[in-house]
Amino acid sequence: MSLYEATVPQLTKMLSNLERWIDEAEAHAKAKGFEPDLYLGFRLAPDQYAFARQVQSACDSAKFAAARAGGKEPPKHPDDETTLVQLRARIRAVIDFLASFDPSDFEGAESREIRLPFMPGKAMKGIDYVHQMGLPNFYFHLVHAYAILRHNGVALGKMKFIGGLDVYDV
Amino acid sequence: MSLYEATVPQLTKMLSNLERWIDEAEAHAKAKGFEPDLYLGFRLAPDQYAFARQVQSACDSAKFAAARAGGKEPPKHPDDETTLVQLRARIRAVIDFLASFDPSDFEGAESREIRLPFMPGKAMKGIDYVHQMGLPNFYFHLVHAYAILRHNGVALGKMKFIGGLDVYDV
Repeated sequence: MSLYEATVPQLTKMLSNLERWIDEAEAHAKAKGFEPDLYLGFRLAPDQYAFARQVQSACDSAKFAAARAGGKEPPKHPDDETTLVQLRARIRAVIDFLASFDPSDFEGAESREIRLPFMPGKAMKGIDYVHQMGLPNFYFHLVHAYAILRHNGVALGKMKFIGGLDVYDV
Repeated sequence: MSLYEATVPQLTKMLSNLERWIDEAEAHAKAKGFEPDLYLGFRLAPDQYAFARQVQSACDSAKFAAARAGGKEPPKHPDDETTLVQLRARIRAVIDFLASFDPSDFEGAESREIRLPFMPGKAMKGIDYVHQMGLPNFYFHLVHAYAILRHNGVALGKMKFIGGLDVYDV
């Protein structure tokens, strides 16, 4: 067991789930007769990120969690998406980046020194970074993206959030 | 590294953070002159759980994730809270339950067979259960609880969500 299992497969799956929620949001907009790109500006509070930035931030959280723990340089994304088509491409780019990791990239990741740009002079151990910052930050933005869609009438539900599970017969 | 690190310390910390958000929600209600227990009925969509049930579900997700992966019988909680005082006691009970775990309880937890009541005849390996179901389900309800408070004017923010981090000087 390594931090690979805690990050890459699950982040990939949740970003794929996010693509399915956008499918449903588009179908909902079509059924209700409104422009689907309006979702990008919807938000839950005036001083919270709107949907577009929640998606961008979920993408960045996933990208940085894997890149920092797995020791790779992350690709740059300028946050210039203004359509659902562009947001989908952003999600897809991060899924492709996640697919570039091999479990061996995470050997010793637990004790890897992680430096964060907003904490100069400080560092975290890889294991602390993933559990205390990487995953919670990812879920923070992902669940806000989900909640914005639900708040605006898209018929999602818990199992569409969770997605498929690796089960076996007993 | 074991599933202990992925669950008990972080679940405990996030539930403690939730207690601080409730502190701020109460202060906000007092400043605005409304009854703080009104929060329990607030929700983001008519067919989503209200705040009380989001908190109960976050508590249960944490309790079950640790109990199943760590091989202990979880305490029962009947979901009968109707006040913030009672919700705080529920959170505190789960934090106390989490404190009863020792890292040694999680030896071999990665391959432990986890059976879920809503999937008869199926099981998951401990490592898959924690990453695919336990943690995402916990964050789903926790972030909804947070978002309901933010949506209703409580001045939280990302670092109050994340909480303290284990950093060291470099």
